[in-house]
Amino acid sequence: MSKPRAVVLVSGGMDSCVTAAIANLEYNPAFLHINYGQRTERRELKAFRALADHFGIGKRLIAELTHLNKIGGSSLTDKNIRITKADPEKLFQAVKNEIPTSYVPFRNANILSVAVSWAEVIGAQKIFIGAVEEDSSGYPDCRKEFYDAFNTMIDLGTKPETKITIVTPVIDLKKSDIVIRGKELKAPFELTWSCYRNEDIACGICDSCALRLHAFQIAGMEDPIPYLIRPKYN
Amino acid sequence: MSKPRAVVLVSGGMDSCVTAAIANLEYNPAFLHINYGQRTERRELKAFRALADHFGIGKRLIAELTHLNKIGGSSLTDKNIRITKADPEKLFQAVKNEIPTSYVPFRNANILSVAVSWAEVIGAQKIFIGAVEEDSSGYPDCRKEFYDAFNTMIDLGTKPETKITIVTPVIDLKKSDIVIRGKELKAPFELTWSCYRNEDIACGICDSCALRLHAFQIAGMEDPIPYLIRPKYN
Repeated sequence: MSKPRAVVLVSGGMDSCVTAAIANLEYNPAFLHINYGQRTERRELKAFRALADHFGIGKRLIAELTHLNKIGGSSLTDKNIRITKADPEKLFQAVKNEIPTSYVPFRNANILSVAVSWAEVIGAQKIFIGAVEEDSSGYPDCRKEFYDAFNTMIDLGTKPETKITIVTPVIDLKKSDIVIRGKELKAPFELTWSCYRNEDIACGICDSCALRLHAFQIAGMEDPIPYLIRPKYN
Repeated sequence: MSKPRAVVLVSGGMDSCVTAAIANLEYNPAFLHINYGQRTERRELKAFRALADHFGIGKRLIAELTHLNKIGGSSLTDKNIRITKADPEKLFQAVKNEIPTSYVPFRNANILSVAVSWAEVIGAQKIFIGAVEEDSSGYPDCRKEFYDAFNTMIDLGTKPETKITIVTPVIDLKKSDIVIRGKELKAPFELTWSCYRNEDIACGICDSCALRLHAFQIAGMEDPIPYLIRPKYN
């Protein structure tokens, strides 16, 4: 019997790479990528394509949410807000009520809405997203309660016969456990991209690089992508 | 004291026109329009601009959701699905479980997500949308329960200090009552556009024209826009 269809949100980072590897075990994935004017849009798209090729994905959709860039309000999309050097003390302590400057207002609801529209048309019943609550450093739209509320809203806003659920397989994992899970599944970390700052060689010092390097170090595994500098994060 | 800021979703049709007139009573409106590859995109945008000028709106955003067109699944965006001539018997009896071909999968969630992102950045606490449940002919994303669930999801997916609520001031009104309310508020119906089929003179026979003409006839008011043919709908 053929595997059921699922939509997988693939930014091109390590969390979405491992999420895709998990989805791939039981589903026939369709890959969705979102351009929203993030600083490293071009580089993320390259990672998305490499991952889709790796997993042999025929059904792909790239959606342009240019309004998120027009609206601004985030250091990820607004070039007037600077990307700061990671402050490890703050970063690894998950200050729950402090929203980082990289928060893109209501981004995940925009992204998931695209996924639901697509899923309804192609007949997918699951949407996989690699949101992480534990180490998310305070994004409100990465919390389990948010996804539960989103699922209720989907149920009420789609056709009666449509049954679509958001699945968050890594939401409870620490980032280091995601590395370990990815290793077990032979997830192609070498194809992924996480850096907020550069597009050629990862900087090693922005929040995203710091979280990633920290996770690989705890997992006792070498991160296979090159870095400009590769600090030890403890 | 200056009026608080609100985002108003303005498609350019009669429901959003009256909704804008209602919002304008107590709020300082910012107008949001969505292009999503709907057949009459150009004509709706013209209506949006005329309405924004009429209400003296400085803050305007036009967002492009081109993926809804790529995804398809609706006669509004997919030119392979034909717009049919209205069948009055079906149309005015609100067949609740039958979804019309003009349903755009999960469209309103996509649109509202844009509105929430914008509202969070510009500091608006209300988002007005002219959804109509009574005469909506079965769109699942026009029901009150959907908006209630959406409000819960907003609360969980935005910053703790953000308080944004979707407001649906005409959701319980019959379309003819919307005409009457609009007349009381001197809403500029002459600037609006509803037809699914044409861009110059409204056809008078698609579902959207039929619902509109029917509503004006019940309200005992002449619809001020020109029609190719203007049937009597009883």
